[in-house]
Amino acid sequence: MTDITKFTLSGKTRTEHDLLGEMEVPVEYYFGIQTMRALDNFTISRSKLYDYPQFIYGLADVKQAAALANKDLGLLDKTIADAIVKACEEIKNGQWRDHFQVDMVQGGAGTSTNMNANEVIANRALELLGHQKGEYTFCHPNNHVNLSQSTNDAYPTAIKIALYRSVGELKKSLENLIKALHQKAGQFVHVIKMGRTQLQDAVPMTLGQEFEAFAATLQEETERLEQNRKLLLEVNMGATAIGTGINSDPAYTGICTKHLARITGMEIVPATNMIEATSDTGVFIMNSSAIKRLAVKLSKMCNDLRLLSSGPRTGLNEINLPPMQPGSSIMPGKVNPVIPEVVNQIAYKVIGNDLTVTMASEAGQLQLNVMEPIIALALLENIEMLIQGMNTLRSKCITGITANEDRCKDMVLHSIGLVTALNPYLGYEKSTTIAAEALQTGKGVYELVLEKGWLDKSKLDEILKPENMIQPRKIQKD
Amino acid sequence: MTDITKFTLSGKTRTEHDLLGEMEVPVEYYFGIQTMRALDNFTISRSKLYDYPQFIYGLADVKQAAALANKDLGLLDKTIADAIVKACEEIKNGQWRDHFQVDMVQGGAGTSTNMNANEVIANRALELLGHQKGEYTFCHPNNHVNLSQSTNDAYPTAIKIALYRSVGELKKSLENLIKALHQKAGQFVHVIKMGRTQLQDAVPMTLGQEFEAFAATLQEETERLEQNRKLLLEVNMGATAIGTGINSDPAYTGICTKHLARITGMEIVPATNMIEATSDTGVFIMNSSAIKRLAVKLSKMCNDLRLLSSGPRTGLNEINLPPMQPGSSIMPGKVNPVIPEVVNQIAYKVIGNDLTVTMASEAGQLQLNVMEPIIALALLENIEMLIQGMNTLRSKCITGITANEDRCKDMVLHSIGLVTALNPYLGYEKSTTIAAEALQTGKGVYELVLEKGWLDKSKLDEILKPENMIQPRKIQKD
Amino acid sequence: MTDITKFTLSGKTRTEHDLLGEMEVPVEYYFGIQTMRALDNFTISRSKLYDYPQFIYGLADVKQAAALANKDLGLLDKTIADAIVKACEEIKNGQWRDHFQVDMVQGGAGTSTNMNANEVIANRALELLGHQKGEYTFCHPNNHVNLSQSTNDAYPTAIKIALYRSVGELKKSLENLIKALHQKAGQFVHVIKMGRTQLQDAVPMTLGQEFEAFAATLQEETERLEQNRKLLLEVNMGATAIGTGINSDPAYTGICTKHLARITGMEIVPATNMIEATSDTGVFIMNSSAIKRLAVKLSKMCNDLRLLSSGPRTGLNEINLPPMQPGSSIMPGKVNPVIPEVVNQIAYKVIGNDLTVTMASEAGQLQLNVMEPIIALALLENIEMLIQGMNTLRSKCITGITANEDRCKDMVLHSIGLVTALNPYLGYEKSTTIAAEALQTGKGVYELVLEKGWLDKSKLDEILKPENMIQPRKIQKD
Amino acid sequence: MTDITKFTLSGKTRTEHDLLGEMEVPVEYYFGIQTMRALDNFTISRSKLYDYPQFIYGLADVKQAAALANKDLGLLDKTIADAIVKACEEIKNGQWRDHFQVDMVQGGAGTSTNMNANEVIANRALELLGHQKGEYTFCHPNNHVNLSQSTNDAYPTAIKIALYRSVGELKKSLENLIKALHQKAGQFVHVIKMGRTQLQDAVPMTLGQEFEAFAATLQEETERLEQNRKLLLEVNMGATAIGTGINSDPAYTGICTKHLARITGMEIVPATNMIEATSDTGVFIMNSSAIKRLAVKLSKMCNDLRLLSSGPRTGLNEINLPPMQPGSSIMPGKVNPVIPEVVNQIAYKVIGNDLTVTMASEAGQLQLNVMEPIIALALLENIEMLIQGMNTLRSKCITGITANEDRCKDMVLHSIGLVTALNPYLGYEKSTTIAAEALQTGKGVYELVLEKGWLDKSKLDEILKPENMIQPRKIQKD
Repeated sequence: MTDITKFTLSGKTRTEHDLLGEMEVPVEYYFGIQTMRALDNFTISRSKLYDYPQFIYGLADVKQAAALANKDLGLLDKTIADAIVKACEEIKNGQWRDHFQVDMVQGGAGTSTNMNANEVIANRALELLGHQKGEYTFCHPNNHVNLSQSTNDAYPTAIKIALYRSVGELKKSLENLIKALHQKAGQFVHVIKMGRTQLQDAVPMTLGQEFEAFAATLQEETERLEQNRKLLLEVNMGATAIGTGINSDPAYTGICTKHLARITGMEIVPATNMIEATSDTGVFIMNSSAIKRLAVKLSKMCNDLRLLSSGPRTGLNEINLPPMQPGSSIMPGKVNPVIPEVVNQIAYKVIGNDLTVTMASEAGQLQLNVMEPIIALALLENIEMLIQGMNTLRSKCITGITANEDRCKDMVLHSIGLVTALNPYLGYEKSTTIAAEALQTGKGVYELVLEKGWLDKSKLDEILKPENMIQPRKIQKD
Repeated sequence: MTDITKFTLSGKTRTEHDLLGEMEVPVEYYFGIQTMRALDNFTISRSKLYDYPQFIYGLADVKQAAALANKDLGLLDKTIADAIVKACEEIKNGQWRDHFQVDMVQGGAGTSTNMNANEVIANRALELLGHQKGEYTFCHPNNHVNLSQSTNDAYPTAIKIALYRSVGELKKSLENLIKALHQKAGQFVHVIKMGRTQLQDAVPMTLGQEFEAFAATLQEETERLEQNRKLLLEVNMGATAIGTGINSDPAYTGICTKHLARITGMEIVPATNMIEATSDTGVFIMNSSAIKRLAVKLSKMCNDLRLLSSGPRTGLNEINLPPMQPGSSIMPGKVNPVIPEVVNQIAYKVIGNDLTVTMASEAGQLQLNVMEPIIALALLENIEMLIQGMNTLRSKCITGITANEDRCKDMVLHSIGLVTALNPYLGYEKSTTIAAEALQTGKGVYELVLEKGWLDKSKLDEILKPENMIQPRKIQKD
Repeated sequence: MTDITKFTLSGKTRTEHDLLGEMEVPVEYYFGIQTMRALDNFTISRSKLYDYPQFIYGLADVKQAAALANKDLGLLDKTIADAIVKACEEIKNGQWRDHFQVDMVQGGAGTSTNMNANEVIANRALELLGHQKGEYTFCHPNNHVNLSQSTNDAYPTAIKIALYRSVGELKKSLENLIKALHQKAGQFVHVIKMGRTQLQDAVPMTLGQEFEAFAATLQEETERLEQNRKLLLEVNMGATAIGTGINSDPAYTGICTKHLARITGMEIVPATNMIEATSDTGVFIMNSSAIKRLAVKLSKMCNDLRLLSSGPRTGLNEINLPPMQPGSSIMPGKVNPVIPEVVNQIAYKVIGNDLTVTMASEAGQLQLNVMEPIIALALLENIEMLIQGMNTLRSKCITGITANEDRCKDMVLHSIGLVTALNPYLGYEKSTTIAAEALQTGKGVYELVLEKGWLDKSKLDEILKPENMIQPRKIQKD
Repeated sequence: MTDITKFTLSGKTRTEHDLLGEMEVPVEYYFGIQTMRALDNFTISRSKLYDYPQFIYGLADVKQAAALANKDLGLLDKTIADAIVKACEEIKNGQWRDHFQVDMVQGGAGTSTNMNANEVIANRALELLGHQKGEYTFCHPNNHVNLSQSTNDAYPTAIKIALYRSVGELKKSLENLIKALHQKAGQFVHVIKMGRTQLQDAVPMTLGQEFEAFAATLQEETERLEQNRKLLLEVNMGATAIGTGINSDPAYTGICTKHLARITGMEIVPATNMIEATSDTGVFIMNSSAIKRLAVKLSKMCNDLRLLSSGPRTGLNEINLPPMQPGSSIMPGKVNPVIPEVVNQIAYKVIGNDLTVTMASEAGQLQLNVMEPIIALALLENIEMLIQGMNTLRSKCITGITANEDRCKDMVLHSIGLVTALNPYLGYEKSTTIAAEALQTGKGVYELVLEKGWLDKSKLDEILKPENMIQPRKIQKD
């Protein structure tokens, strides 16, 4: 996406004015003076509104619903309303993205973003109506496009729509990742290996069980994400500046919200307490938390993948990650777990952004939380990075993992942890003796039990059969 | 609660031994050698197990359910089982709390806490059976009390029970606070005041609406807390060391969990994937998040209370908080908002602890998360502080708040924000003129409109009637 | 800066190969196959290497110093070394920035970034030597450009150079801001106003003192930033893969570091323990902390500016921030403190990124911290946003602030806090009586004292002279 | 330490009064009505003032210095001053700790803590003067003990003194730990082992080098702690309520600070800008950061220790940690790394508390930061836990670590990473061939090189001599 300073401009401008005076606006652009002020005031981050199309679409949904409600209530001329609706639809088809230029990080509680949308829609509507950009008498950013709204209801509503959809995309990536893990679990169902607790040898399991557990733990995330994104469906359209609904028609909230639900196909409803809804950002905390939880789980899983693939000779070496790039300019043949590593780093960034959301939420004051722009950015950034990270993890790592089956089995056979399975037959004390002797002598548990004659070979084989050690079973002492 | 070093001891000990050797245990105590080792190894924090009775009760529930299941399955002698059950019930009646001495912060994934419980229960059961403490042949901490369990299922299950109940208590405190806010909202229903956005004068509202919004925003927290604490009801009893259920009877999980549900009166169920459930701590992240969200909202509300009561002469001075203590040793007559201030500080601590939970969760490795002890402590600390904080806030602040009704009304009448209500009648441009002139001259909006003759007095009075400005209304232009 | 996918490409490619096979590289680019792999593997964030020119320059410095050291030691042919040096200098003159395309967020501990630099330099050197891109026999990314280095020394050294310089730029912005605050303090030196503690009226001060304190608190930040950035001057060039210096010449570290110091003009020295230096990221934590502290102080100051400018009628209204944009589409005449608001949000992002740095640092394992890429990004992001934020704050807010002198003075005269100054003359008890009566009756302290005849007018005037209340003084009781 | 509710009380009380009315105080206690109010208002946390003796001593230092300064300036009667000094000295000798009962978490910016100290000192001084507790005419908590002070200077100054000393204790623990690591490094100087980057086999090093790097990285922490604690030596005694020094003698600051420096033996100086110093908490952020950095490094080291000791059969198993407790009730012979695990958890708590400090600092408003109590608690908690953690780590883990020398050497010999050392002799390509073949066939690098005849045995032995691979060396190609 192009930066305004890079845009090929004719050099021609039109003059616009607002409460603070006049400014020149490049004729190529649909945005107007308030966007220009924002570009001047806020050169803060590298994140611009055009980087987040879902946010732009959310704004267009809101403006469209408002126009329809205003038309229904006789507050807005049909012709103007129709032009606004048409402009919004074009935007949602992906047009005019270059015209949404404001910095995502801005003061003013999102006024600049709201006005960027109002201005682009007004000017595009003007063209559709056969007028020139800037002829605001026929369609005005505030008087028509923003009618019955304020930034304080339009902006958070657009964020919620954007997040709801973005979380939907996040869930899709997640589900694909889960599917890949299930498949891997299926492939590895017969690979017996040692389980480990506290990084110490514990008891046997299968590699299939391990990957199935990865899938299962992420499966819970689809539920948490869904449960929490539903909270985003409560909006405050119509309660304007502080939630009292000043200057809005008593019927407006209901009508506008219904339009919005229909247009978006989402079960959007009005908040029960509009004053609360205007200042509260709790819904963002909760969604940020659910997203963070996903990041934490992914990071834990990637830590495990890196551990399990450590080696090749001096590590655990149970699995092989597909090599993605030469690992070292100095160490020939080295291949590194670069994909899990990048997911770990994404997780740390996500957790950092979650803190940003928390602090910004705490900073709300009285009838508004003016810190919403940074909340929106932090959340959208997190979602995007996690989508990219999960897609990468799935396609460039998980699907290509192979097991070192012999190595896995070997470690089980030589492990002292086997002794746990003998516990019910030999008792804790004899088992401990075996464990201690194995540790000292380097001998195997199997060997030692036979040596001592504490169990006969057929019984011992029965007990130590892999399929018997990886699930509960009736203890049958002879 | 008393520290072991302060306990009046006879100086007599009994000798116990474990895999690492022998130790002397004071005869007065029900705990044994493994607890002694833990006391020796972990003098880390000021938080001891006895500080968190809900945790002790959770452990007793778990041990009781396991004993009953083991009895049902014929794995545990009825007499021993009954003695264990009796000992657990005594503990849940508040007895023997002094015997739970281990540091809440410990390595070993909770083994020390689990063994502290096993030992206290075993020794108390021994007494109930007519034996001496330490005569473990008749009832052994591991072989009987811990039968069919490992720390890796018993410990997290006990934490979940403790948290479920503690969140229940938290909800009660919260509901009482909400009730107090509702009452206050009722009292203030007629107090008209200015709403503020971005700390700038916005439009009128009532103080009742403001307090009702406080109540409403906290009401959502009861839902979030409830929704998330339900996730705590999935436990992993019976899957022992790593979730494969090694050495446990196939029927044990079902029977034990049912006993646990019955004993606790909670809808406890087995996790669907036991391997996942053994290592995953996602449920703690989610509950920590919900608790953090409550803290964030309380902090925002307390910030508002401090703003609204700022003054008395050079601040907003809309409300008075009840004076709780002389405010200053140097400034006579100064009274400070000490109660909201302490709640803010609690919130910062809660947010810090939430980060602790996040990091500890991310640090889980392979088949276990060994960092559960710090997770448990962080959560229990947070819940306790919030309960204390909300009780204090309710009883020592909210219920005693009074309104400076005249001051509130006065600020509305002199505000420029009134002009917003004139917007639909005068239009944005004329309204802006009035606003600018008011700001320059110091005159009132009402006065200026009459002066200019843009509306007649009766119309103006109608528009600016408080009850008309604090809700949506049909715009009737004449 | 342009994204590779947007670059106007001829469609022609050259074939390159590495350990994993062959790939096509667009002929227009100086980078080669390993960068191509990185582009393929890591589409994670919107932050690309070309976004951070200081980082690119740091890489060029490192490669240049290494080439010179290798030449001195006879390890690298003079012609090749000179071409490498020339290529590095071009890059530091701002050329070829488009060729640094890898994502800042990457696995592999920075290998992709290091190889991007190696490849661009090698290919540019080839051209300078009269060869074609890709003719690596004559100048090879690994064998020549990366000679005597590994990613594990070259990459963190480049980050340190980039950060050292970036913190230098940060300090410049900060110093300009401090200057503006000093000037404002000078302007406001005679504006007497009430000081507030706990948002309650305290005792008088001047607005000049308040702004001077802002300047003073930021002045400390220049010292902290400087003190901590000095820690960045310890580098690990020459200790290659894990800090043991395998395959590097014993003299290399010393020679290379001296070249680096000379080239950069920075007092760069070798770390005392190279193994420690290879895995440790403590220096980034400390710099992140210092940067965070600056953000916290800016946020506190902006909170104050928003409080002091609250109003215009229903807030403190002591100062006016310059209006930067119309504040509201619904509330005519409203102007909001948008610049401080954006700085607050930057601070929350900075604090979030600081957490990212902390977590990434903690995640280092054994002989390397593979999470350095996210550390670099988080720090560079923070520095950039703070520079933008401080420049904006200075030029669009601080310099335009005006004082409402009468309002400030008025609040002092009507404040009850005045009574504090009477304390030494009337005693705490009488003063308290005055305070209480003032609060109840609404009368002023001055008036009440005269009314009661507890001090004569001339004495009272003397005590309450502004210049007497804003500094220590000898108490002269008559 | 005993809780007031547990204290054996006679049931007798004395009546005290303050601005808000009267209260009964148990006669046994030196504290008075304001402490009673605090006990009533703030039952928030389990952390009481008596838990932090360094804080109590800091308060006593401050009160003593103030009394001496007031005496010097003729503001305080010699007899009273002397009694105050005597009371302070008793407190610093460890007496009367039970009388410091207020909750560490409190509103009022520390007023309750300051008053607890003022009251205890006043009443003890009264006794020393031959009066009864409560006869405040002869020595008053405010008029005499708190003379020329306010909470806003006395409280933060006491915190700074407490922290300065506590960081001193922290440094001692740290230095002992470093010493233990150095000793271990000495023991392990000949243990050759594989270094690992990204958990993949890298190149050889010694276990001694690895432990020396642990020591070296912690050594830097002693410098950072020292550098940052020095910032604590700037105090604001004498600038009273808001830093303007109202009601204090112009000479007081200088005299009081000198007394304080002499009494404490610390190089305490007055802050250069007293208004800034009254509200700023930057010094706590910086010290919290340095303490956090220590925690991060300890956590990284403990992660490494757990990795290196993983096994015994299915992990790296390079070192053995001393067994501290039986590891598992279900798995015989299992011993876990419980000590490093507890240190990890401490680190997560420390990082959480660091966030608390950050948020509390950001929340300062105008002329005061009212959140200092939670800052003090978070820092003191962190220091205490780290001292306990490091002492535990040293004495119960580090000193008992043993190396599995054969295992370490074996992994070097069988590693593919050896090939790196051959790089300068065989070139990258041949080396890569060897590496690939080794990986496929399971053969060793040494064996393969000989097999292919690419180097003769004596040359190969020379190159692969451990002492040659663990440091830089001149490459001599034949």
